[in-house]
Amino acid sequence: MINNLEKIFSDSAKNMKRSAIREILKLTQNPEVISFAGGLPAPESFPVQELKQILNELLDEEGADALQYSATEGITELREVLLERYQKEGMNVGIDNLTITTSSQQGLYLLGKIFLDKGDKAICGLPSYLGGVCAFNTFGVDLHGIRSDHKGMRSDHLEEKLYELEGQGFKPKFIYVIPDFQNPTGITMPESRRKEILTLARKHDIPIIEDSPYREIRFEGEHQKTLYQLDNNGQVILLGSLSKTFAPGLRLGWAIGPREIIERMVIAKQSLDLCTPTFTQKLAARYIKSGLFDENLKKTIEQYRKKRDNMIQAFREYMPEGVTWNEPAGGLFLFLYLPYNMDSEKLFSTAIKKNVAFVMGNVFHCDGAGRNTLRINFSYASEERAAEGIKRLASAIKEEMK
Amino acid sequence: MINNLEKIFSDSAKNMKRSAIREILKLTQNPEVISFAGGLPAPESFPVQELKQILNELLDEEGADALQYSATEGITELREVLLERYQKEGMNVGIDNLTITTSSQQGLYLLGKIFLDKGDKAICGLPSYLGGVCAFNTFGVDLHGIRSDHKGMRSDHLEEKLYELEGQGFKPKFIYVIPDFQNPTGITMPESRRKEILTLARKHDIPIIEDSPYREIRFEGEHQKTLYQLDNNGQVILLGSLSKTFAPGLRLGWAIGPREIIERMVIAKQSLDLCTPTFTQKLAARYIKSGLFDENLKKTIEQYRKKRDNMIQAFREYMPEGVTWNEPAGGLFLFLYLPYNMDSEKLFSTAIKKNVAFVMGNVFHCDGAGRNTLRINFSYASEERAAEGIKRLASAIKEEMK
Repeated sequence: MINNLEKIFSDSAKNMKRSAIREILKLTQNPEVISFAGGLPAPESFPVQELKQILNELLDEEGADALQYSATEGITELREVLLERYQKEGMNVGIDNLTITTSSQQGLYLLGKIFLDKGDKAICGLPSYLGGVCAFNTFGVDLHGIRSDHKGMRSDHLEEKLYELEGQGFKPKFIYVIPDFQNPTGITMPESRRKEILTLARKHDIPIIEDSPYREIRFEGEHQKTLYQLDNNGQVILLGSLSKTFAPGLRLGWAIGPREIIERMVIAKQSLDLCTPTFTQKLAARYIKSGLFDENLKKTIEQYRKKRDNMIQAFREYMPEGVTWNEPAGGLFLFLYLPYNMDSEKLFSTAIKKNVAFVMGNVFHCDGAGRNTLRINFSYASEERAAEGIKRLASAIKEEMK
Repeated sequence: MINNLEKIFSDSAKNMKRSAIREILKLTQNPEVISFAGGLPAPESFPVQELKQILNELLDEEGADALQYSATEGITELREVLLERYQKEGMNVGIDNLTITTSSQQGLYLLGKIFLDKGDKAICGLPSYLGGVCAFNTFGVDLHGIRSDHKGMRSDHLEEKLYELEGQGFKPKFIYVIPDFQNPTGITMPESRRKEILTLARKHDIPIIEDSPYREIRFEGEHQKTLYQLDNNGQVILLGSLSKTFAPGLRLGWAIGPREIIERMVIAKQSLDLCTPTFTQKLAARYIKSGLFDENLKKTIEQYRKKRDNMIQAFREYMPEGVTWNEPAGGLFLFLYLPYNMDSEKLFSTAIKKNVAFVMGNVFHCDGAGRNTLRINFSYASEERAAEGIKRLASAIKEEMK
């Protein structure tokens, strides 16, 4: 037995904390609990039966290849079908600009790995996706959060922060943004804000990480151009994912960016897992090519739109005065604002007793703020359970308000 | 476009090199080239048709679960069937001692992540698996190599090294060994050597990483007890893999160790990919439970035994005097020793012109030694192509000898 095990762990391991969300998810194992905590796609959105034929064909036509090792940057078929989708939108990308990743979480981690040394600065939103923040933190980064308004990350605050850091002799390694249906707020950046942030990034010569797993889940309005496309000049690394549009159980994502950065990510990925599972890549490439992907995605969007509407309906019906929320045009999340003097951590204890769960907003704030906010997932629960859950949540809020 | 991109990369990224093996593999894309370079399982070893029924049942019975997120430590079914196999051998392990990893390469990386800070010391074999060495190097570790004899890592040299480092005030973070059919040498440590290394590790209070992807591919003789089992007291972390016994295209591995270490690996894994693909885990759990795994493994072992025999036969027939090799009792690799004054890097240029490829032994030596050695994979090529390839290789060696 190792003595003083704690002593021999790396600095990174010493500072590791279990993800707050994963801990909350454990409390929601009880089937009585209606959980709005996870970011889970609806089980009914998965094309279970459609996959049978694709899998049988895959095994018949290229079974041995599907079970073998493959290139670290991903199989060509999948890279090509993904590129085609972006190229159709007018994006200027070639095969060397894209690598497959074992989930876009791996993409975030890889970007941390190739950019961050201990003590480096980086910029993220307030609030921001917890998995991104956690991945960056394992490298000992000093994260600086920028507040958001209804258009996403505030560019005036970003500008101030960049000058402030510059004055101290620091240049952040990157700016991390989630411009479409942001996790956790649901906010989408309009083009004007995207351009402002891009201009600042160029001026200060800082790469932007554009994390975009929800972009295709849009209920209404037009797709915004990606920052990658608005830039078109090597400033942006774009991360995509099939977790919300197909199935998270396949762990398939990708990164698009300047060749030199993608190449470093690929080299770093060799040490992480050599390659992403060939089998799931082949499956996804065939699924997208068959047209079933687009067909099913349309259905999923329709399902989620209804679930969002149903959820907002329940908010209107049950929430007491003083509670507000946003109404996102896509994605998986709603963000709820309690009166300023309330604490969503305290609310959580009351809520879980009433068998309803959510994620406290403060965990998404690298500065510990947001104590009066909470994230609500609307994609997973059925409409009935969602309405009942919101009723319970509203009753917990009322109790806490007293 | 980012100016001075090179400047903003992390130290880790600045020092990254593409894996020498992956670069060699590119040269072997030409179908004329007979490649002994990769560590690829034989395509004919994959149970392609048998998987159809399993996949159909999986989709029918738990399709939505198979496509959803799952626990970071892996799905319970797979962890349990793997544990059972070890428990049958008399190993004392419970569910908290095992986490699934997205390939055992991820296991190696995670151990680097939780143990290594820049400048830390660690011990590996000379030679050693390149993917392990590369993963550890990304953390800026100072690796100390220990020479091997026909029983594997030399315990007398290990002891000297540990005292030497202790004298300088250093304690290595771990000892990395591949005790069964080692990559690249094919050597298996006998129990006596395992116990010597274990005794030293205990005396100096240093964890052992036991990397064991080939152990079940044994052609003759009895399985050696794992160091984990010989220890049975929290000194050893054992890494396993389905890449050689089932299919590398699924990227499934696991780590077994003290609860506190497994827990840190799981927390670190949250940032790497949240979880290993649920779909491939469910597939593997069903495949093992069905009995097809053991049935197919028996066939694979028989195939590889024949391929090894065929390869050694070709060596005997074609190799000039002065060239020697080991005869491994399992695994995927043979190791060839040229006369001391020869250089396998020079040989490679001659060999590739004759359309045959291998990996130079020096890439497996963290001290740059082993220039007169080469690694030969015998699992991938057909018996005919293998014989032809060895003939070509022997002719290249004869040419270089002149």
